[in-house]
Amino acid sequence: MFENSGENKTSLSELGEFGLIDHLTQHFKIIHSTTIKGIGDDAAVIDFKEEKAVVTTDLLVEGVHFDLAYMPLKHLGYKSVMVNLSDVYAMNAKPKQITVSIAVSSRFPLEALEELYSGIELAAKLYKIDVVGGDTTSSTSGLLISITALGGANEQDIVYRSGAKPNDLLVVTGDLGAAYMGLQVLERENEVFKVNPRSQPDLEPYSYLVERQLKPEARQDIPPLLKALELKPTSMIDISDGLSSEIIHLCKSSKVGANLFEEKIPLDPAVISVCEEFEIDSTTIALSGGEDYELLFTIDQGDYEKIKGNPNFTVIGHMTEENEGMHLVTRANQKIPLIARGWNALGKEEE
Amino acid sequence: MFENSGENKTSLSELGEFGLIDHLTQHFKIIHSTTIKGIGDDAAVIDFKEEKAVVTTDLLVEGVHFDLAYMPLKHLGYKSVMVNLSDVYAMNAKPKQITVSIAVSSRFPLEALEELYSGIELAAKLYKIDVVGGDTTSSTSGLLISITALGGANEQDIVYRSGAKPNDLLVVTGDLGAAYMGLQVLERENEVFKVNPRSQPDLEPYSYLVERQLKPEARQDIPPLLKALELKPTSMIDISDGLSSEIIHLCKSSKVGANLFEEKIPLDPAVISVCEEFEIDSTTIALSGGEDYELLFTIDQGDYEKIKGNPNFTVIGHMTEENEGMHLVTRANQKIPLIARGWNALGKEEE
Repeated sequence: MFENSGENKTSLSELGEFGLIDHLTQHFKIIHSTTIKGIGDDAAVIDFKEEKAVVTTDLLVEGVHFDLAYMPLKHLGYKSVMVNLSDVYAMNAKPKQITVSIAVSSRFPLEALEELYSGIELAAKLYKIDVVGGDTTSSTSGLLISITALGGANEQDIVYRSGAKPNDLLVVTGDLGAAYMGLQVLERENEVFKVNPRSQPDLEPYSYLVERQLKPEARQDIPPLLKALELKPTSMIDISDGLSSEIIHLCKSSKVGANLFEEKIPLDPAVISVCEEFEIDSTTIALSGGEDYELLFTIDQGDYEKIKGNPNFTVIGHMTEENEGMHLVTRANQKIPLIARGWNALGKEEE
Repeated sequence: MFENSGENKTSLSELGEFGLIDHLTQHFKIIHSTTIKGIGDDAAVIDFKEEKAVVTTDLLVEGVHFDLAYMPLKHLGYKSVMVNLSDVYAMNAKPKQITVSIAVSSRFPLEALEELYSGIELAAKLYKIDVVGGDTTSSTSGLLISITALGGANEQDIVYRSGAKPNDLLVVTGDLGAAYMGLQVLERENEVFKVNPRSQPDLEPYSYLVERQLKPEARQDIPPLLKALELKPTSMIDISDGLSSEIIHLCKSSKVGANLFEEKIPLDPAVISVCEEFEIDSTTIALSGGEDYELLFTIDQGDYEKIKGNPNFTVIGHMTEENEGMHLVTRANQKIPLIARGWNALGKEEE
């Protein structure tokens, strides 16, 4: 993707640690008046006023979570922020600040980090986030990004994973499986490129899938939409590891069971067609693909009218008593136990 | 130090990501009633009440910040927490929560991570910190620890780097240089050990130095002591990179100069004697050694009586007008410009 060999490339060691942080963060603007102090002291200072603070952190490792062969650095910076913001939205809260720490090996020139930070900056601008701190250091190999996101919410608005009740409806935003299939397409093109570097991939038919993989958007629209609908979910989680894994999290936290209806799972037509092309079952992809960054939540049945017909939401099932277990109800009306085959950074399927 | 080869060693992949987090954090207790939700949801929820929130983050990388040849994992866990808490104390604030993210290669067995977490747990217990979140993932090589610390303070108590005025006194807590010399001793013993694995190092004469390197304590006593003395520093920073570098930070943030008096720099007798043994200038070590985690602050001259004779504090200089520059005044009464030769994770001396 890039090498530290071209002309006009600046070695990181020329800048030093403090110089590097100053350089990379010089364009970052503080948006929130509640950010009392951002970068430049031992710590940032934030005023949460009447709100409760919501805090989440994620670590992205080269070779584990991303491959720079097909993930442009600007997109990687953007996506790193999205991954964290998505967790804040999943609390029905509003993210306001992030800290960004990176470890990089010396093979990365300054220009590579500028690309990475331009993606972070774009995400911060579009989602109205202040970058208030971080750490920059060298690594012995590869690139690693650790982001912590801070947000605020009124206590009565916060939605945990633990509040679902039997008979609650299970609802998902958007559609599922596209990010994973985008990754499959990119990996295939990368293999072709390795064999024939002159090949010109035509990614146009896969543009939606590739965009969902390379430039996912966190659902910042959902918390205000829920507020406008006067709808507070009983539980909520974001879909980072695949639908199946997230349903299991909600069920375990809430001590309930669930029935998920295969025919209700929202799939984009592009997912269906690429699954046919790859000869993969699209339901499996939706259940286990991951990285969709949609929101999954439960609502009281009495609130159904509030979401009925709303294109942002799809009712995909309902919660049951805990002892009924967690099942996928197939199109053939078979009940199959849900298992979490979610993408797992430690290399094992979750039970 | 350890290998993933012994009996009774558990491979990380046997547990999976969620199992691992649950396993490692099962003993962690929530202390603060303001920690509304800790580990186990998309994000933690914290109530800062009337206080402002203070947020800081640090990244520690194997082979860059620590060497497992002489850093036991339990100590590493403890120290990783201290590094972050020290930044919170440097704001004159009280740390209350941390998130802990780690990336580990598969060469680490579960038992190694248990050791690491036992050090984190001990630090959390002794410093009354809630571990409220984190992320655990694999790395392609080595161990990396990213910790974010959250604290609280009343707005009027927060001390920034930027408030020092000309004629303010420059004050440091504790003594300097011991952590760096502890590292020199450990590195020497490691070299001896490589040549002769049967050698039995006698570290007893160096116990203070080695402890300052392997098990530093953040100065949690200082903010309440300052409060008891009714003393609010005009600026403050913690000493992680060496005295010289930190003085320069205070001066640049406050737009002042400084005179540091060599004869006033507090050194433990063990530092003086080991510097003679290693034939290194002890002033250089205090100026550039780093990792002391003491606090450096400035006070109005009118507050001098409040610290006079207090064994926790040493007045080492005073601030000047910015155009007078930053100088070390030697025992021979020579003025030498201060330069930051601080320990630099990116491999370059800071200007």
